Amino acid sequence: MEQYHPLTEAEAIEKARSIPGVLTPGAELVCNEIGDGNLNLVFHVKEPATGKGIILKQALPYAKVVGESWPLSLDRARIESEALIIQGNVAPGLVPKVYEYVPELALTVMEDLSDHIIMRKGLIEGNKYPLFAAHIGEFMARTLFFTSDFGMNQQEKKRQSGRFINPDLCKITEDLIFDDPYWDSPNNNTSPAILDDAVALRNDKELHEAVSRLRYGFLTKGQALLHGDLHTGSIFVTPESTKAIDPEFAFYGPMGFDVGAVIANLLLNYAAQGGRMNDAEKLRDFRAYLADTIVQVWNEFETRFRALWNEHAADRMLRASNYIDEFVPELLQDTFGYAGCKVVRRIVGLAHVADIDGIEDDALRARAQRVALAIGTALIKHHRNAKSIQEIIEIAERETSAKEGI
Amino acid sequence: MEQYHPLTEAEAIEKARSIPGVLTPGAELVCNEIGDGNLNLVFHVKEPATGKGIILKQALPYAKVVGESWPLSLDRARIESEALIIQGNVAPGLVPKVYEYVPELALTVMEDLSDHIIMRKGLIEGNKYPLFAAHIGEFMARTLFFTSDFGMNQQEKKRQSGRFINPDLCKITEDLIFDDPYWDSPNNNTSPAILDDAVALRNDKELHEAVSRLRYGFLTKGQALLHGDLHTGSIFVTPESTKAIDPEFAFYGPMGFDVGAVIANLLLNYAAQGGRMNDAEKLRDFRAYLADTIVQVWNEFETRFRALWNEHAADRMLRASNYIDEFVPELLQDTFGYAGCKVVRRIVGLAHVADIDGIEDDALRARAQRVALAIGTALIKHHRNAKSIQEIIEIAERETSAKEGI
Repeated sequence: MEQYHPLTEAEAIEKARSIPGVLTPGAELVCNEIGDGNLNLVFHVKEPATGKGIILKQALPYAKVVGESWPLSLDRARIESEALIIQGNVAPGLVPKVYEYVPELALTVMEDLSDHIIMRKGLIEGNKYPLFAAHIGEFMARTLFFTSDFGMNQQEKKRQSGRFINPDLCKITEDLIFDDPYWDSPNNNTSPAILDDAVALRNDKELHEAVSRLRYGFLTKGQALLHGDLHTGSIFVTPESTKAIDPEFAFYGPMGFDVGAVIANLLLNYAAQGGRMNDAEKLRDFRAYLADTIVQVWNEFETRFRALWNEHAADRMLRASNYIDEFVPELLQDTFGYAGCKVVRRIVGLAHVADIDGIEDDALRARAQRVALAIGTALIKHHRNAKSIQEIIEIAERETSAKEGI
Repeated sequence: MEQYHPLTEAEAIEKARSIPGVLTPGAELVCNEIGDGNLNLVFHVKEPATGKGIILKQALPYAKVVGESWPLSLDRARIESEALIIQGNVAPGLVPKVYEYVPELALTVMEDLSDHIIMRKGLIEGNKYPLFAAHIGEFMARTLFFTSDFGMNQQEKKRQSGRFINPDLCKITEDLIFDDPYWDSPNNNTSPAILDDAVALRNDKELHEAVSRLRYGFLTKGQALLHGDLHTGSIFVTPESTKAIDPEFAFYGPMGFDVGAVIANLLLNYAAQGGRMNDAEKLRDFRAYLADTIVQVWNEFETRFRALWNEHAADRMLRASNYIDEFVPELLQDTFGYAGCKVVRRIVGLAHVADIDGIEDDALRARAQRVALAIGTALIKHHRNAKSIQEIIEIAERETSAKEGI
C-alpha cells in the first residue's frame, strides 16, 4: 500500500505501463499534466508512435482555486470512480472506461478521450453537435432512471445511496450555487460593471424564496445518483460521440439538477454569443441551434425516460398508478429552477465560464452577463409554474431582446 | 467477542448485573421475556425487593410473525440503539436511557419503564392522557428539527443519514403500508366481513395515485431522522410521562410520516371506541378527547417546531426567506396522507391493532373497521388539499356519522 502523495509524471508513466491491453509494451511514452479543474491532477500519458493514451486522474486533498485552505476529502476519487463504473454499466459508451482505481493514491486510471474536445470550447468556437442532444438525453435518462427507485431494487438503491454520501463536494454546491450569489459573500466574483444587477439579486425576496425551495430540494430529494456537475466543461464531444466526465460531485439528489445543469450551460453560451458573433445572421442561426438543442435535450431525455419507465419500471404501485405522469411535470419544474441557479452562479459567483469571461470587449461582456443573469433569475422565479420546455426559449428570447435591444 | 445467539433468561440476568449503578449489587433478580413485538426478544430483569429493573432488547434475525422465513438484518439493533441515543440527546426524558449496546449480540440494555403502560392499552381502556399531546409534540418537534437540515450541520446530517440506511425495515413499511393493502396480496389480513370495502380499495385509481405519491415521498424525501414506527404501541405513558420506544425503523425520511403515525393511531382508537363504549355520552366525550388530542398534537408540534426554527435555524438562505412558511403547509399535507395510509394498513393489511381487533361483537368490529377505512381513504385522497388540522376532525366525524348512522 503506497502512501498518498501527488504523483510525478514519471510515476504516472509507470502506472500507465502497468495497465494491460491499452499501450504497446515497451513503447516510448510521454506525459503531460493537463488538469484545468481546481481539485485534481490529470496526467495524459501518450504513446507518440501510435497516438494511444491513458488518463490518470488524481484527487488533491484541497481545492487549488483557494490554495490549500479548502481541504477536501480524497474519498471523492472513490466516488468518481464508482460513479463512472455505474454510469458505464447503465449508459455504455457515454462515459470514459475505468481501467483501475487505486484507493490509497485517490487515483483513477481511465480511457484517453483526447480525440474529443471539451464541449464548452466547441460551443465557444461556434461548432454544432447535432447528436449531442440525443446522446446527453440518453445519458441522463439511463443514469437517472437506473439509479432511481423506478429502475432498481429499492433496498439496493438505499445501500447504493450510502456509498455516495458526498458531504464535501455537496457543500461546494450548497455554498457556491445556492447561497453565495444571494448575498455579499467574500467567495463571490462579480464584475464591477454589473454590480447593480448583483446587488438587486441580494435584495430580491421573491427570488430568495424560490432559491430556498430549490436549495432544500438539493438537500433532501434523494431521487437518483446524479452526475452532480454536468456542465459543458464536464462533457467531451466529437461530432459523433459524447462522453460525460468528472462525476466527482456524484450523490443522490434531485434529477432536475443534472438536466438543469446541461440546459444552463447551453443558455450561458446563448448569452455569450451576443458578445462573440459579430455577424447578426450567424448569431441568429447559432442561437436558433442552441435553442433547438435545449428543447431537444429535454425531449430526448423525457422520451427515453418514459420509454425506460414503460419497459423497466419495477414498482407495482408506482407503475399501476402511472406515477410518471405526476413525476415528469415536477421534474420539468426542477429543471427550470436548477438551470436558473446554475446560470446565476456563473455570473456573480466564484466560478465563471469561459463562454462569457472570454469575451474581449468590456461592454459586450457586461451585456452578456446581464443577459445571462436576467435569464437565470427569470427561470428561477418561473420554475414552479413551468409547463413546457418551450418556455425556457421564450424566457431566453425575451430577456435577450430586453437587454440587447434587438 | 461473543457469537450471536438468542439470550437465555439466565444470560439476561448476568448482563443486567454488569450494568453499574442501576440494580443493587448481589440482589436477587427475576427475568421475564415480555416481547409482544414480532422482531425481538425483550427481557425484563427485575429486582423484586426494590422494584428496580433493566430492559434488555435483542433483535432476532427473522420476523417472528412469519416464522423464520423473513430474514432481517441484525443491524437494526445498532440503528435502534443509535437512534435512541440521538433522540435522548435532543429530546431528553422522552425516550428510555440506553445503558449499553452490545453489537455482536444485537442487544440494547436500557431503562426499565415498567411503571408506564403502552399507550394503546391505556386508550383501549378509555384513559385520558392530558399531557400526551404536549409531550409527543415536543418529541417530534425536537427529534425531527435537530436531525434535519434546519437544525444541524448539513454535512454532518449527510454523514448521519448514512448511518441510518435501513433497507430491511424500510422494505417492511414499503410493502405492508404502501403496497399490499391496494391489491390482493397474500400478506393481507382482511376480515371477510369487510371484503367489499377491501376490494373497493384495490380498484380505486384516484386512491392509488395519491398513495403512489406518498410512497415515492417515503422512498426519496430524506428530511429528518424519523422514529419510523411511531404508533401508540411504541409509546409508553403515565399521566405525567411519555416515552417513545422501539425506533428500530429509524431512517431519514419525510417528517409527516412520524406525525401521521401518531394521528393515525388516535384515529384508529376513535373508530374502535364506537364498538367498545356502550354509553353514548361516554363515547361522545372520549371521542371529543381524542379529536382534541389530534388537533393538539399537531398544534404542539407546529408551535415547537416553529419556535426551534426561530431560535436555531442555522441555514442563512432558508432562514432569510422564511422557508418554514412553505415547509409547514407541505408537512401538514404529508401528515394527512401518511396518517391515512397508516389507518388503512391496520384494517386490511398484515398487522392490525388491538383497539379494533379486540372488539368482541362481530358486527361492531366490522363497523369499526369500515369507519376506520373510510377515514383513512378520505385522508389519503384529501391530503394534497389539506389546509388545516381541523379538517382531519371534520373527516373523522363525517365518515363516522356516515358509517355509524349517528
